Amino acid sequence: MQGRQHISAQFAAELDGIRSAVMEMGGKVERQIMLASEGLESRDSGPAEEAIAIDRDINRMEVEIDEQCALILARRQPAAGDLRLIISIIKLTTDLERIGDEASRVARLVIKLASAGGADPIYLHTAKVARHVSSMLREALDAFARMSVSAAVRVVLSDKEIDEDYRNGLFKLTSAMQQRPEQVEKLLDHMWALRSLERIGDHATNIAEQVVYLTRGVDIRHLGNERLENLLD
Amino acid sequence: MQGRQHISAQFAAELDGIRSAVMEMGGKVERQIMLASEGLESRDSGPAEEAIAIDRDINRMEVEIDEQCALILARRQPAAGDLRLIISIIKLTTDLERIGDEASRVARLVIKLASAGGADPIYLHTAKVARHVSSMLREALDAFARMSVSAAVRVVLSDKEIDEDYRNGLFKLTSAMQQRPEQVEKLLDHMWALRSLERIGDHATNIAEQVVYLTRGVDIRHLGNERLENLLD
Repeated sequence: MQGRQHISAQFAAELDGIRSAVMEMGGKVERQIMLASEGLESRDSGPAEEAIAIDRDINRMEVEIDEQCALILARRQPAAGDLRLIISIIKLTTDLERIGDEASRVARLVIKLASAGGADPIYLHTAKVARHVSSMLREALDAFARMSVSAAVRVVLSDKEIDEDYRNGLFKLTSAMQQRPEQVEKLLDHMWALRSLERIGDHATNIAEQVVYLTRGVDIRHLGNERLENLLD
Repeated sequence: MQGRQHISAQFAAELDGIRSAVMEMGGKVERQIMLASEGLESRDSGPAEEAIAIDRDINRMEVEIDEQCALILARRQPAAGDLRLIISIIKLTTDLERIGDEASRVARLVIKLASAGGADPIYLHTAKVARHVSSMLREALDAFARMSVSAAVRVVLSDKEIDEDYRNGLFKLTSAMQQRPEQVEKLLDHMWALRSLERIGDHATNIAEQVVYLTRGVDIRHLGNERLENLLD
């Protein structure tokens, strides 16, 4: 019995280790987005270069966490609940890695836009969306750490605000393209940055949806607002 | 011993069942892309509507396959090789589901563009990219079914052609926007469709990369062409 307790304490410690690694990976991804946002605000390529450099760590961490999950599955043969948690983590690292890719894309656009100059308010709009998305990701990771359905549902609902910000941005950019066709290229770069940010919002939503699936066994991917709100505390 | 053989035959049958389910899911996603492509060629919204309808099946299949993977992990406690395969399948269903989302996005744009009319050669360019991407996905799934490193590497290399097609398309669309600012909205819809197709190529590449990782244990996500070609038979 003591042996079994010992093993289960070790197992719990291993699971905690994986959870911390996920949070650390998430923190790095969040930092990438914040750096991209700073770059947009200051029109400086320094932070954007830092964001791109972080991407290598993130790719490495995805592989490491997946390896740890495989090891734990092989050694510990976890039962239902823990098994589902590990499967979710495997999905989650994919989302974090893809967020890292999108954040790097934004950072590369920031570098390009930094050299293009100009003082359009669109830089600030895009930076605002980036900050919003970054805090949404933090909330999704927080919901995961606490396995909080309410927090996860709030993330899903806030994605609708990001979609709204995104559509407003697109609308402004489209009008600007029609009025200033000579600036189409620069305006398109802003559009791509906005698109990547909107995608980051989608990935953060995926993470939040996993939390609800893990805790309630409900697939909320295609529910309307009203039914989502019923899941709030 | 007979009991063990019996179990291992059952286990093999279960793994085969999951593999077939993945191939079936992949087939549906491929069909979605082909339908979107037909819609672009014929400027008809019928096939696009069919593509959107398939998306529900795809979302359901992702959940089902993941459940099957969880069951097999819980019941069979598979060893190293099979364990890795199951982890890969869990990543793979995520990619297939995201491809389905992108294909639905393209289909929705096809419906919008079908009503916009016009006879730009860009429709045919986009349809060509869609066909290319669809066959790339088929090859990625085929590489997965046969666990063929060469086939997988060819998929990764062909993604570079898709990126090229994508950039050419973007270049043409950007020039068209500058020359015909009154058509910016329609041209942007083409751009989004192209972007979604390019993303589908990325997801197919992820699937192929998983195949190489499964069979060789090598992470090829950040290798150059030359080192990739060394992996070909």
